[in-house]
Parts: sequence; C-alpha cells; structure tokens
Amino acid sequence: MYEKKPMKIENKSMDIIDTVMGDVNFSEDELLVVKRMIHTTGDFEYRKIIEFQNNFIKIAKEAFKNGVSLYTDTKMAYQGINKPALEKSNSTVRFFIDDEDVREKAKEKETTRSACAIEKAVDKGIEGFVIGNAPTALFRLLELVQEGKANPKFIIGVPVGFVGAAESKELLRTFDIPGISTIGTKGGSNVAASIVNALLYMVVDR
Amino acid sequence: MYEKKPMKIENKSMDIIDTVMGDVNFSEDELLVVKRMIHTTGDFEYRKIIEFQNNFIKIAKEAFKNGVSLYTDTKMAYQGINKPALEKSNSTVRFFIDDEDVREKAKEKETTRSACAIEKAVDKGIEGFVIGNAPTALFRLLELVQEGKANPKFIIGVPVGFVGAAESKELLRTFDIPGISTIGTKGGSNVAASIVNALLYMVVDR
Repeated sequence: MYEKKPMKIENKSMDIIDTVMGDVNFSEDELLVVKRMIHTTGDFEYRKIIEFQNNFIKIAKEAFKNGVSLYTDTKMAYQGINKPALEKSNSTVRFFIDDEDVREKAKEKETTRSACAIEKAVDKGIEGFVIGNAPTALFRLLELVQEGKANPKFIIGVPVGFVGAAESKELLRTFDIPGISTIGTKGGSNVAASIVNALLYMVVDR
Repeated sequence: MYEKKPMKIENKSMDIIDTVMGDVNFSEDELLVVKRMIHTTGDFEYRKIIEFQNNFIKIAKEAFKNGVSLYTDTKMAYQGINKPALEKSNSTVRFFIDDEDVREKAKEKETTRSACAIEKAVDKGIEGFVIGNAPTALFRLLELVQEGKANPKFIIGVPVGFVGAAESKELLRTFDIPGISTIGTKGGSNVAASIVNALLYMVVDR
C-alpha cells in the first residue's frame, strides 16, 4: 500500500527533508523556501546552493501581503504558481514569452524572446520577477536595472543550464536587490514556481 | 557579453553536456533524451539515474510518427511540451487534474486528484502516459494495468519526491511496458516534458 492522502504526503515529505537540513544554516522562513525547492526537485543538493540576498524573504512576504504584480519568463513557471493562493494575496502573474510583438522583436534584434519579453514586462511596470529558465532574461533585466530603467521589488533568479545560467545568477548577487538565486547550473521553471508558492503559503491559507 | 542566439545557446549547452557523457553507455537516440533531461534540470547526475525499458525509444518514436494521444499528470508538464512540434506529429496531449469530477471523486475516495485523473485518462483511451509529479498517478496506472483495465503504449514515469516516488518508479520497472524512469527521488514535470520534446525532435522538424 502507498500513501494516498495529499496533505499527509506533503507533510511526510517535508519531514523527510528536515532530516538532512542539519548541516545548513537558514532562518525559519528561509527553510520553508529551501524545503519547497527540494520537495519540487527531489534534489537534496539544493540546500547547499541557495543564496538569499538583501532581505529577500521579508521584502517578498510584505509584497505578497499587499499584493504584487509578478512576471514569469516561461509559461511553465506561470503554470506552477498556485493561482488560488495568488488570488488570495491579491497578486497577479503574467508572461509575455508567446506574444507576437515579442517574437517579432526577438527576430529583428537577433536575441531571445526571453530577453524581449523582459523589456515588455518592465514597460508594463511589473514589480516582482520570477526567472526560472532563461539566463538572457536575467541578464537583460539586470542591464535595465543598471541603466536605471527597471526597479524590481525582488528577483527570483533561478535560470537553469550550462550557457550563462551560473554567470547570470552570479551577476544578480552583485546587485543591491532583494533576491534569491542558486549557485551553478541548477534551477528551472518548477524551482522558480516553488519559491513563489513557498512565499504565498507564508502569507495566505492554502 | 553573453550569448543571445537561441539555437546557439542550445547547441553550446548540448556540447557541454556531451563532455560528461563519457562514463555512461547509451544508444544515440537514448543520448538525445538523456541530454535533454540534463539540459532541463542543469543536473549532470541524471545521466546515472535514467533507466529505459522494453524498447521505449523505438516504440515511442513509432507512436509519435503515427500520432499518439498523451496524458500528463500536471498542467506544468502539459505546458512544457512543445505544442507546434506535437501538432506536426499529429499527436495530442490532455490533462484532467483540475476537472470538477476528478476533484469530487478524489474527495469522496480520500485519494489524490492525480490518481482519479489517471482513471479518467484510462477511460478516455489515452495511449501514452507522461507522469512527472505524482507517485499516486503512477501507482494507480500500474494497478489498472495489473487489473487488465489499462494498456498503455508507453509510460514516461518520472514522479518526484520523497514519499513513494522512488518506489512507484521501481514498480514501473517490473512491468513489461515500454518506459523510461529515474532511480530515486529526482524527477519533475519539467523532466517529463523534456522527454516528450526529445522524442518529438527526433521525428519532426522544430
């Protein structure tokens, strides 16, 4: 027989994750985020590669308490965010990766749709950025910050992969912006969404 | 400066992944699947934990050549599948996790929506199963196979987590069904989608 009750499964899972957290040092709130990232990937190594910066949890929790506009770089990250919880927090989430104007701009400028979609998100006044896939999205966002054109409340920066992902996250960690990122190649849309959900579950009932 | 051309990024990424594949033994087609799973997670360890069974690649490629009906256990996995490529292969993908009848049945039977959604998928005659999240979905599917009520063409079984995920995949590997799974806790909706996409890119132009 196998466990079939949803909340029992999740609680048991979190208890199992707890057993390996003895060798790392996180605050109680940080731990909730880290554990959900591990829950989502099945990968204990995450506990060693997650970096919080500039009071991320406090700022992000405040933002979710007041309602915040989010942007995700992929539809998968969008999909992974718990919408009923998001609504309870009066927050919103959008993505622009498939928009026709973004496609055209990317072709014209010979860059990724991810980078062009970030420009659109900045134009639209998005407050919180959730980047789980494309290093070019994070790089472009940081360029816009550098140029004084973007001023994110926080950045969830966990792009994945072998070309620029690690570097883009390293760059994020040099900025004076509330954020969370991973060291190295690991990340992903599912990881990005899990961070948002962990924050939501701190401020609203599920 | 960072690389901005999408296909260049992907090709470079695949080249980097190639450099670590010397210590494993996969067929050329298998390698395409394994590499895409690594590409999606940023996690080289996948090369050591992926198991193919019962001629999976050959059977799945044939299915995608002829058009196949797929089911995903989550919307995230659904979202991660390349739809233009899927359409070119005359295949379809559905999910039932949010359906009202599935919700009601799960409450009534005190089990997960994932398990009830699998029952619905089997009723609907789905041919290929893509399970990236819920061990209970994979367990339930295998029960239905055991009872002679389901006869999947193939199973992509990469549920993630610490409660039943490893066991459900171990069980899959005892069945005489074309399949792919991971050993241990790792997996995910993104991983499941990456397997489908790798197969699609073998049979259609992107």
